[in-house]
Amino acid sequence: MSFLQRTVTCGFLRPEHSGNEVVLNGWIHRRRDFGSVTFLDIRDRYGITQVIIERDEMPEIGEIAKELRAEFVVAIKGTVRMRENPNMNIPTGLIEVVAQHLHIVNKAEVPIFEISDENLANEELRLKYRYLDLRRPTLQKNFIMRNKLYQLTHRFFAEHDFIEVETPILTKSTPEGARDYLVPSRVHNGLFYALPQSPQLYKQLLMISGFDRYMQIVKCFRDEDLRADRQPEFTQIDVEMSFIEQDTIINLAETFIHTVWKELLEQDIPSEFPRMSFHEAMNRFGSDKPDTRYSLELTSITHVVNNSAFKVFQDACSLQDGAIIALNAKQCAGFSRKQIDELTEHAKKYGAGGLAWIKWSIEGDIQSPIAKFLTEDELQSILSACSAEKGDMILIAAGEWERACIIGGALRTEIAKRTGILDAVIGTFSFLWITEFPLLEFSSEENRYIARHHPFTAPMNEDVHLLDSAPEKARAKAHDLVINGYEVAGGSIRIHQNAVQQRMFDLLGFTLEESESKFGFLLSALQYGAPPHGGIAFGFDRLSMLVAGTENIRDVVAFPKTTSAYALMEQSPSRVAAKQLGELGINVEIKK
Amino acid sequence: MSFLQRTVTCGFLRPEHSGNEVVLNGWIHRRRDFGSVTFLDIRDRYGITQVIIERDEMPEIGEIAKELRAEFVVAIKGTVRMRENPNMNIPTGLIEVVAQHLHIVNKAEVPIFEISDENLANEELRLKYRYLDLRRPTLQKNFIMRNKLYQLTHRFFAEHDFIEVETPILTKSTPEGARDYLVPSRVHNGLFYALPQSPQLYKQLLMISGFDRYMQIVKCFRDEDLRADRQPEFTQIDVEMSFIEQDTIINLAETFIHTVWKELLEQDIPSEFPRMSFHEAMNRFGSDKPDTRYSLELTSITHVVNNSAFKVFQDACSLQDGAIIALNAKQCAGFSRKQIDELTEHAKKYGAGGLAWIKWSIEGDIQSPIAKFLTEDELQSILSACSAEKGDMILIAAGEWERACIIGGALRTEIAKRTGILDAVIGTFSFLWITEFPLLEFSSEENRYIARHHPFTAPMNEDVHLLDSAPEKARAKAHDLVINGYEVAGGSIRIHQNAVQQRMFDLLGFTLEESESKFGFLLSALQYGAPPHGGIAFGFDRLSMLVAGTENIRDVVAFPKTTSAYALMEQSPSRVAAKQLGELGINVEIKK
Repeated sequence: MSFLQRTVTCGFLRPEHSGNEVVLNGWIHRRRDFGSVTFLDIRDRYGITQVIIERDEMPEIGEIAKELRAEFVVAIKGTVRMRENPNMNIPTGLIEVVAQHLHIVNKAEVPIFEISDENLANEELRLKYRYLDLRRPTLQKNFIMRNKLYQLTHRFFAEHDFIEVETPILTKSTPEGARDYLVPSRVHNGLFYALPQSPQLYKQLLMISGFDRYMQIVKCFRDEDLRADRQPEFTQIDVEMSFIEQDTIINLAETFIHTVWKELLEQDIPSEFPRMSFHEAMNRFGSDKPDTRYSLELTSITHVVNNSAFKVFQDACSLQDGAIIALNAKQCAGFSRKQIDELTEHAKKYGAGGLAWIKWSIEGDIQSPIAKFLTEDELQSILSACSAEKGDMILIAAGEWERACIIGGALRTEIAKRTGILDAVIGTFSFLWITEFPLLEFSSEENRYIARHHPFTAPMNEDVHLLDSAPEKARAKAHDLVINGYEVAGGSIRIHQNAVQQRMFDLLGFTLEESESKFGFLLSALQYGAPPHGGIAFGFDRLSMLVAGTENIRDVVAFPKTTSAYALMEQSPSRVAAKQLGELGINVEIKK
Repeated sequence: MSFLQRTVTCGFLRPEHSGNEVVLNGWIHRRRDFGSVTFLDIRDRYGITQVIIERDEMPEIGEIAKELRAEFVVAIKGTVRMRENPNMNIPTGLIEVVAQHLHIVNKAEVPIFEISDENLANEELRLKYRYLDLRRPTLQKNFIMRNKLYQLTHRFFAEHDFIEVETPILTKSTPEGARDYLVPSRVHNGLFYALPQSPQLYKQLLMISGFDRYMQIVKCFRDEDLRADRQPEFTQIDVEMSFIEQDTIINLAETFIHTVWKELLEQDIPSEFPRMSFHEAMNRFGSDKPDTRYSLELTSITHVVNNSAFKVFQDACSLQDGAIIALNAKQCAGFSRKQIDELTEHAKKYGAGGLAWIKWSIEGDIQSPIAKFLTEDELQSILSACSAEKGDMILIAAGEWERACIIGGALRTEIAKRTGILDAVIGTFSFLWITEFPLLEFSSEENRYIARHHPFTAPMNEDVHLLDSAPEKARAKAHDLVINGYEVAGGSIRIHQNAVQQRMFDLLGFTLEESESKFGFLLSALQYGAPPHGGIAFGFDRLSMLVAGTENIRDVVAFPKTTSAYALMEQSPSRVAAKQLGELGINVEIKK
């Protein structure tokens, strides 16, 4: 089981090594037989080196070479020489190694699928054989890029005086937001730990302990039904700072992102990013994480049609916070009935009852299912408000303001995808801060206020008085960093005063007992000299996706799970022994 | 809720800043009133700065100062000047800040206990109010040291071409060794994830994927009954390399540890550490992780007494692998009956039936409960074999070889503690590799072989043939790094051949179905071109303890749990809502 150990990697050799005797270890990437010579491309993480076997001179090696197939692991001893036909596409392309010894270190079955970025096998198969798929050039490149992001992150925050501290993974269940993953305790039967959705409270306690600047690259967990860009466990760069204002964090995050783009993508992006209030972002883009690489903005036509006799508009305008939102889909008047039906279905997913539209054809005809309910004047006013031109199509959403905006935003994204607007901006980046989020929102389901961000977010100074009079109007000292429509980071200034935190729990409808049993340690800590503090958490996986240029989170997570939180390779979750459950004092109760 | 934000930290100011106007934020560390002036020591992570309040000149500030108590958070604006009475013990001791503005940013209750390294409150109370205890100078220093260790580790392995890759926390339960923490799946009711005891298989798969060199600072989990130096979750520096032999890893680990001691402790330790086989370590020190800062070695007297008529010795010698192990407790002949009883109890904890001893008093008398069973010649031979002198006491353990050694080793440690031998070496370090571990051991409980290290460890080349004839004699390509009696790192060369891995599972008594259901993905991966590989994992917490100079793991873990795996501050584990359990399809079954 010993083997001939390499003296150089497959990415090392250059013309100046000509004449050197070397040993290479690696995988057979390709084998080509030409008459009396065989060429082998030997691959490792560092590159590919061409090996030449002169079969007439080395008949024994020639025999071994016959056995070689793709992905065999080999050790080759030989002499470096200049190539007759250089390959300028690879860094080792000027040389080759003439084999003197060849050993098969480990054989390989024919791979289940071709290890290549072309003709990808279906993703399920590739996830099952993840160790083979990870050999693909694109995935190798992604994880090398992800590694650079780790190194840069460690270095950046260390240089800015941050201390790396690890917080527990076995934490306390305090469900307020997403679902916790639970871990039954064996020592304390009937009690459970929870895996952290974020180290939020721990990092606040570290500030109260005086650590001043904390950072951690940390796994977090949410037991949610997964979307394509979510995993049940995900990684964040968690950051918290004391004695700061919101600008301090925002500036630090900008410097960090600037450094990432500069070092990993060699792009010089702005050192400051525009900021936009939640309200403005919703009005203009129908999203609190708008993709601002393209404009395609929404228009509020509430004031234009607020006297309309059309019942849908009337109903929306009669709401306390109603709005009628239009999107000018430029040059989309040619959309077919089917395409409009698809847009309608899309709008319904976001809560629309239906979709009103007005087509203004190139020829000047106006076609619209709602035309009969509107006066000619109203119709013209809508077109004019939307700066419509011949060939455009106006899409209209009506209802409660935020809902109408969200529907408008969903249509905006869909139109961008369908018209080439999105294709035109691929490879570019747009950075944006969203600020002034509402602190609370009313949940009619739970019949109480819930925190938009989390219950530890501080209200804006000028809105503190609203906590008593109109809590839903209070804005938070919260900030989200949006890149190309992804929420890449989110954070806030936290509440550092016990009384304000109590008031917040109160607003959220917690009884004193609930506050105490869930968050007693935080309330206590806030009584012992808590500094003003705040922070931010960057989604490491999303950041990796952006710098790697992929839209599939599984391209940047080494061993990902499917959208049903299943690991196809290990086949996990799995059944466990009755003895294990017995020790934990739990029973499985399979639903009928 | 705005506050006067600092312009400098409390560790920044020096004489060259005299005359500057600055703002400090921090905690009231101490307040002293002298006639018309009040001195405040303001503390933050970076240091302590003296602030002087001239109450006659600034009566309003004087009024506010009266309210100040320890741990209040304040903002102070003032002018730097040279001190009349410098304090040479702190870096800022040459200057002080004359206060012009003083604001109380947040008040503090009187701390539950004094925040000081003297007169420590009991540990339970300190764990409950961990955020206060973390303000203690020693803990601040420890976590700053731990942070340096993270930074050095990230940098060291990056410089050595390692790639940082994250492996899953939600993994598959494959109990083989310690107990897993389980996580019930909501999407797949009745199935469970397990928290990883180590990322062993994932790192091997990364080698098979061609990543060549992997590292990760990673949380691992073991649901074991805890000892003082264990936590249910612990951190390791996990390392794996391809195309290497055992020496490659050992040398790398030596360079790493050398760098740690040099940079964090400014100590120039040897660049190579001695290596000792498991067998030699057991014979000489009665431990596979001996503290070699002191000698106090064991002596095998099996050959000396193998013809003795003493039944205890006869029984031991008649065992297939029996041994009689003696420890010369130098100058311990004066031990009292009570002390010997305590030693006997200690030996029993490690499996001794009793403890035989021979005292050779300063005066030359021999006293021993077993003297009557031994000939004078045997007695003298024992003393001579142990190089005993007057005043010494010989302690003797007899039985199965490994057990007798372990008892001898336990007595060795205890004697070192009780005689000042250990005190004499505190602050020094001794580094040692243990190698040539047995691959397997026979578990009479399970009536099968179990892996000493783990089932993926490769046998030594020269012992492969023993897998068929005498598996218990086969040695492993395993290596443990021992520092001062702590196992600081452990690793091995792994099996990279499918057939050998199958054979190993077979030896461990797994059926084909069991191998397949537990480790099928590994067996499959080994068929597709696995490179020779191996690695090591360093215990990050233990390494932190050593460099921080503490023997309490809770001094280097920010939010530790008690020995019953309970978090006193958050009060976790805790009860969860019936709705949560319902979604997971589990019931709690409280044991009667």
